[in-house]
Amino acid sequence: MKNTFGNAISITLFGESHGDMIGAVLDGLAPGLEINEQYINEKLALRRPFGKISTSRAEADPFKIISGVFNGKTTGSPLAIIIPNNNAKSGDYADLKDIPRPSHADFTANVKYHGYQDYRGGGHFSGRITAAVVCACAILQYALENKGIYLGSHICYMQGIEDKNIECVEDIKTLANLQFPMLNEKAKEQALEIIESVAKDGDSVGGVLETVVLGMPAGVGEPWFDSLESMLSHAIFSIPGIKGIEFGLGFGFADVNGQLANDNFAINDQKIVTKTNNNGGINGGISNGMPIVFRSVVKPTPSIYKEQQSIKLSTMEEQPLIISGRHDPAIIHRARVVVDSLTAFTLADMLTVRYGTDYLAKDGE
Amino acid sequence: MKNTFGNAISITLFGESHGDMIGAVLDGLAPGLEINEQYINEKLALRRPFGKISTSRAEADPFKIISGVFNGKTTGSPLAIIIPNNNAKSGDYADLKDIPRPSHADFTANVKYHGYQDYRGGGHFSGRITAAVVCACAILQYALENKGIYLGSHICYMQGIEDKNIECVEDIKTLANLQFPMLNEKAKEQALEIIESVAKDGDSVGGVLETVVLGMPAGVGEPWFDSLESMLSHAIFSIPGIKGIEFGLGFGFADVNGQLANDNFAINDQKIVTKTNNNGGINGGISNGMPIVFRSVVKPTPSIYKEQQSIKLSTMEEQPLIISGRHDPAIIHRARVVVDSLTAFTLADMLTVRYGTDYLAKDGE
Amino acid sequence: MKNTFGNAISITLFGESHGDMIGAVLDGLAPGLEINEQYINEKLALRRPFGKISTSRAEADPFKIISGVFNGKTTGSPLAIIIPNNNAKSGDYADLKDIPRPSHADFTANVKYHGYQDYRGGGHFSGRITAAVVCACAILQYALENKGIYLGSHICYMQGIEDKNIECVEDIKTLANLQFPMLNEKAKEQALEIIESVAKDGDSVGGVLETVVLGMPAGVGEPWFDSLESMLSHAIFSIPGIKGIEFGLGFGFADVNGQLANDNFAINDQKIVTKTNNNGGINGGISNGMPIVFRSVVKPTPSIYKEQQSIKLSTMEEQPLIISGRHDPAIIHRARVVVDSLTAFTLADMLTVRYGTDYLAKDGE
Amino acid sequence: MKNTFGNAISITLFGESHGDMIGAVLDGLAPGLEINEQYINEKLALRRPFGKISTSRAEADPFKIISGVFNGKTTGSPLAIIIPNNNAKSGDYADLKDIPRPSHADFTANVKYHGYQDYRGGGHFSGRITAAVVCACAILQYALENKGIYLGSHICYMQGIEDKNIECVEDIKTLANLQFPMLNEKAKEQALEIIESVAKDGDSVGGVLETVVLGMPAGVGEPWFDSLESMLSHAIFSIPGIKGIEFGLGFGFADVNGQLANDNFAINDQKIVTKTNNNGGINGGISNGMPIVFRSVVKPTPSIYKEQQSIKLSTMEEQPLIISGRHDPAIIHRARVVVDSLTAFTLADMLTVRYGTDYLAKDGE
Repeated sequence: MKNTFGNAISITLFGESHGDMIGAVLDGLAPGLEINEQYINEKLALRRPFGKISTSRAEADPFKIISGVFNGKTTGSPLAIIIPNNNAKSGDYADLKDIPRPSHADFTANVKYHGYQDYRGGGHFSGRITAAVVCACAILQYALENKGIYLGSHICYMQGIEDKNIECVEDIKTLANLQFPMLNEKAKEQALEIIESVAKDGDSVGGVLETVVLGMPAGVGEPWFDSLESMLSHAIFSIPGIKGIEFGLGFGFADVNGQLANDNFAINDQKIVTKTNNNGGINGGISNGMPIVFRSVVKPTPSIYKEQQSIKLSTMEEQPLIISGRHDPAIIHRARVVVDSLTAFTLADMLTVRYGTDYLAKDGE
Repeated sequence: MKNTFGNAISITLFGESHGDMIGAVLDGLAPGLEINEQYINEKLALRRPFGKISTSRAEADPFKIISGVFNGKTTGSPLAIIIPNNNAKSGDYADLKDIPRPSHADFTANVKYHGYQDYRGGGHFSGRITAAVVCACAILQYALENKGIYLGSHICYMQGIEDKNIECVEDIKTLANLQFPMLNEKAKEQALEIIESVAKDGDSVGGVLETVVLGMPAGVGEPWFDSLESMLSHAIFSIPGIKGIEFGLGFGFADVNGQLANDNFAINDQKIVTKTNNNGGINGGISNGMPIVFRSVVKPTPSIYKEQQSIKLSTMEEQPLIISGRHDPAIIHRARVVVDSLTAFTLADMLTVRYGTDYLAKDGE
Repeated sequence: MKNTFGNAISITLFGESHGDMIGAVLDGLAPGLEINEQYINEKLALRRPFGKISTSRAEADPFKIISGVFNGKTTGSPLAIIIPNNNAKSGDYADLKDIPRPSHADFTANVKYHGYQDYRGGGHFSGRITAAVVCACAILQYALENKGIYLGSHICYMQGIEDKNIECVEDIKTLANLQFPMLNEKAKEQALEIIESVAKDGDSVGGVLETVVLGMPAGVGEPWFDSLESMLSHAIFSIPGIKGIEFGLGFGFADVNGQLANDNFAINDQKIVTKTNNNGGINGGISNGMPIVFRSVVKPTPSIYKEQQSIKLSTMEEQPLIISGRHDPAIIHRARVVVDSLTAFTLADMLTVRYGTDYLAKDGE
Repeated sequence: MKNTFGNAISITLFGESHGDMIGAVLDGLAPGLEINEQYINEKLALRRPFGKISTSRAEADPFKIISGVFNGKTTGSPLAIIIPNNNAKSGDYADLKDIPRPSHADFTANVKYHGYQDYRGGGHFSGRITAAVVCACAILQYALENKGIYLGSHICYMQGIEDKNIECVEDIKTLANLQFPMLNEKAKEQALEIIESVAKDGDSVGGVLETVVLGMPAGVGEPWFDSLESMLSHAIFSIPGIKGIEFGLGFGFADVNGQLANDNFAINDQKIVTKTNNNGGINGGISNGMPIVFRSVVKPTPSIYKEQQSIKLSTMEEQPLIISGRHDPAIIHRARVVVDSLTAFTLADMLTVRYGTDYLAKDGE
């Protein structure tokens, strides 16, 4: 469904980078969910650029919930959010329609939309849209936390640098307060150095995010097309710049034998657990009660200051291109919040499919 | 939608490993598509076990199309396929309900279905169901070939062994005739040696499949939730044993800077191309006319002959388990056909969304 | 989704009148629902022709459930049903491709499917497909009854003849045993006389079905696109021959003022009820706890023995047509079971959306 | 999908009567469709109250398109519309939460949403939301007209008064300029007299709308669940106050024999037509090229000034109720625009399913 996702709960996105506003509609919400504006703002703040490693476009993201909330709680009817675009400088992008930026969506958008697309600042393809995603999904992430389900992501890898693992709810809470989400201080410094260094060089950098979900009940997901992996990857791949996802041991499964790969069972505190978690908490597409663990890779920001080879569409000639305007040398730390957001959305949706409309608002269980 | 997938065209699956029959329903097909039974049988043959590296269960897969075809062509109404299960030995699995196999879906199925699942041979979670997928999707893969769109997969990596790349339609045609899909003879021998060796040891092995699509028109896919990556990953992750997917450079994006990662444009034969294809033929979720390239990882078959730790659900005690019955030391070569099948399905669906119901049956364009 | 319907539970149909078999797939069922084969057969028997007023095609409908059931209960994975077509005489219909029958789907099918449709006996448009609908939905109707939700339909009107109203569960149980569903004996005789009389004349007759649902909980349905009326009408209009539906007072609302039309509230046995039920148990698209009441009109069977005007498609000339073969002078009494079936399906689906996957299998509310 | 409808094109609604704003998101639009603001405003004006027969709430409906349009044409990405609610007087409705209005959604909303609903002015159930529907769908209705597909509705019946039939495109154009949509002047006067008379009495009135679509190509629609009747009725029944729909002869089919009911074919100007149009342009769920004709019934506005019986939810006691605030004695003339709007939407969606994304923007055909 193009810009709508979800079965029991759905999210619909709209907006362009340089339009009046962007927004999202959440439908199928349980009535009675609390709207915690501070929580939403904290999530939005994490998505915003910071310090030297981000663009100078200051996005305050003063979101406005225009429906679906009454007396501070969800009503159960569609919750629409709008966020004005205050700071767009359209002039910066005027040339880009004819000369598409390499590895951006400029060219494919032009083919798909026959030249009618709003090309300014990437239009509907802009990372700007993710502010609406974060805002909407924060409501669901907060509801999940009230059910004891915590999730968070960190930069687990970037150009040789590795972070320590997320191991407990405390780690997730720590990450929720970090603008640059790495748990190991040393690794974090090194990663920031890499980013500053490529920034000075007019270049950019990507990395790998690892997401961990704690407290997910067993028995959620489907054997075939709505497997947890299918639904999560469907959501995560909609984020601009994500080019890979792996669950548990992921591509590492290609290097080990079954005996090592298999997760043996054990009883722990009268609960069934597995001794290892190579399957990332999912068997046969269904949660098994262990932490859900996946990693997604963010490609280097395609907007760089170096000369690149493009083409002039109007004349079909090759054309060198130097991109001006503002752009981040890295977006992985900002993309992290979007990954969290769509993870929260997908799990909230699948729990609602399983347990009914009111589940997220119910106490207990 | 659980066991149904697709927007303009949909596939619905049913069946269990040890039930009477399995099957699939394809809906939304263009009328007038040719049913090439030989082509379908060739695909089914590639999915079937072969030689020493597979189970001894001989599955002849005599599929029967029971609706939607008239005079050898699709009618446009739902095409249903059934495949009888002739050779199931249910006795082999009777104990497994109470003692779930590690890294199988036995445990999660039991939680989800409250013990009502058909546990014999993995039931609806069995790889057996993929025979119906292959049979149904072969109709679409054949139609795509008639439009000049070719796709195929090979084992590109397994425990240190690498295959050469797929480079042209000839490579894809070669793979279509290989029971064990590797292009480099030396690498293939080594891979087969690994499999035989782990088989002797009662163990199993996984690997990485690389899929290449040639001839895909530019402009297909959506910026947000129905991005090509989202739709393809949604389909591919429904295949049992797949735990990761990456497009183009994939996780390799975490090791390079933007300048190296970006695909510069060029004009070739009056067509717009990119000099590299690090984005795997997809920008902003939309095909760019270059080959679509992705890799998916297959975990080692969880059924191994070694002793493992399980639990006895009825008593909640830990319980050693030695699995009997037949099982493959590797399924990656068989999974490859299923990956091809769901890739064909997904592209056929997205092309139909874009160009209308009759597209796949139309000449030219 | 063309031949698939439903949100939490879905039904997918396939088959043609003169193909090998027809069938249906139910997905999203709660695990643990009882399969009562006798109940299913009773519903199928009601759909079958009887006595003088129906065709002589004897359809025994020996359905076979080929997946999704284990030890007599649903497993929770897709339940597929097939019903062989044993008695089709394709020869009867061979001429009809070029000369479409008036008010049948022959002409529209030919335009839509470019001549590739299986035209024999109406193909996929045939009422024959409804046997699969009845068989599949009987499982859900039985589950609803176990939750205290009873539903049934009678012929409330036919050419001036009116039946008495359905007033209680007993009436519904009575109807479940009537091959010709009218409660008032006198009216029933008159209706049968009309049918016999038009039959002798080579003509056909339609009528109005009234459906009543007792025991439906309040609070199910959506304000906008998935209102109870929207979902029920979507389902009911898929039945061949249905051309109208009205809820409660229906078209009668055009003749009364608001004061008369409005359903005043009252307290009855500590339960909120309405004194009248002009809204047919639905306000704002949501059930209000009163009986759900709607009427649907079945047009006269278009196959009649009288000479009609058709056209010859191959020459684009007008062409008189006399239809041979078997056909019913009335199908309303058989359509009734299909209306019940899709009503049961729709309510089961909407209850599952609201209360979660396991709802229908749970004891008590 | 609750508040989202459509397959190839989708519409998502949000907003409450007394919230900040209401709105809609259209997704899946062809790029390049012209936005004719005057056309949209004309449609909105028809929905607005007028003269003595409507409420005094002046709704100027200054809609704002906040995404999906660039340089006056659709871009192909989601088109979001917002309309501020400037004139809501929430005080009027404060008591109604505890004492539900008869035949309104107050009671069912309270059950469904557990008291969390925004009850002011009907909240999300309010006819106010239809302003967003009209605004969004006007874009599609305009595009249909550019393809030669015209549609319109009139009040064909109200308490004994009948209008003359819509017979040609000119009639549709006439109706598009009438605030009170009746073609026969005498009938119109009588209908207005009825409305004024019931208004004086503090009562309200309903009626029947007849909708005609001219120029619809043959071959659009599906045999089963997405039949034209299914999709249109699904859309139309989402409009507050609609309680019945019938196609062609509709409930009149219960009074005629097959010979009279059947539409014989003829050749007219080398085109295949039917001599009568009892099937309302649809056979087997598929358009046959004749005018699509259906009637829908609007119940009398439930808000009346007379004393009615309600209940007090907090004490579960019966409670007389006199509704204050503003309300229309009739909404049928305003509902007409909403029926037109959702008819345009549904046909645009089904044409796009059939002919592909770009169909509505293409010249010719």
